[in-house]
Amino acid sequence: MYDTEGLKILTEQECRELLGTVALGRIVFTDRALPAIQPVNFVLADGEVVILTAAGSKLAAATRNAVVAFEIDKFDHALATGWAVVVIGHARVIAEDGELDRMRSLPLKPWNEGEPVHYIAITPELISGRSLPKAPE
Amino acid sequence: MYDTEGLKILTEQECRELLGTVALGRIVFTDRALPAIQPVNFVLADGEVVILTAAGSKLAAATRNAVVAFEIDKFDHALATGWAVVVIGHARVIAEDGELDRMRSLPLKPWNEGEPVHYIAITPELISGRSLPKAPE
Repeated sequence: MYDTEGLKILTEQECRELLGTVALGRIVFTDRALPAIQPVNFVLADGEVVILTAAGSKLAAATRNAVVAFEIDKFDHALATGWAVVVIGHARVIAEDGELDRMRSLPLKPWNEGEPVHYIAITPELISGRSLPKAPE
Repeated sequence: MYDTEGLKILTEQECRELLGTVALGRIVFTDRALPAIQPVNFVLADGEVVILTAAGSKLAAATRNAVVAFEIDKFDHALATGWAVVVIGHARVIAEDGELDRMRSLPLKPWNEGEPVHYIAITPELISGRSLPKAPE
């Protein structure tokens, strides 16, 4: 199956497997009515995308109970092969003690270790992905 | 200058220079009220970000005269160094003949060569960027 751009449509299973192959993704959200995007490191935990953000950051504020997109991709330098996966789901700040303990045991380190952090979990509600190369002629 | 995540804030000049160093970016837009993101190859032309999209694609429809974000980034595998730049601006479909001729001379190739394409230009209105490593302790 190919989309209108001629890219191959990945299955949900392929997308879920690709989520486990990279450590960097991008959160897409809305910031004061404008589209916003921020790279984040992440881990998968029980099928959820878990990220860390500084407690006072705009990302922490903007993703509180919001619907966000989370994107990962990998393309070679010549842009001849590659893939991208996008997850859409509700983001929630982890606040419950037991769940926080579980999050703290994940292999996820903040970029700024001096600051208090929030754990944010995104439950995938829609998963889609595309890959290059394009459809054969 | 460092942001709330402890990342270094890049100057506008640094951001503009980084825009010329990569060939792949990500368009962030709204698709049926949901955040959406799509990787695209791009070139810079007279300070504008120019992308190609299939004429009938949702990207072509969603970016018509919309405010979009455009992101590029580069991180090393261990996520110890890296940078990200985000451009926000109006996207417009190039329709005027003279400008189309100019676009067709750019080194920009569609991923799906069989389909009619639209050229979309994004005029940067806001440019921001961050870099790792984080602020020294």
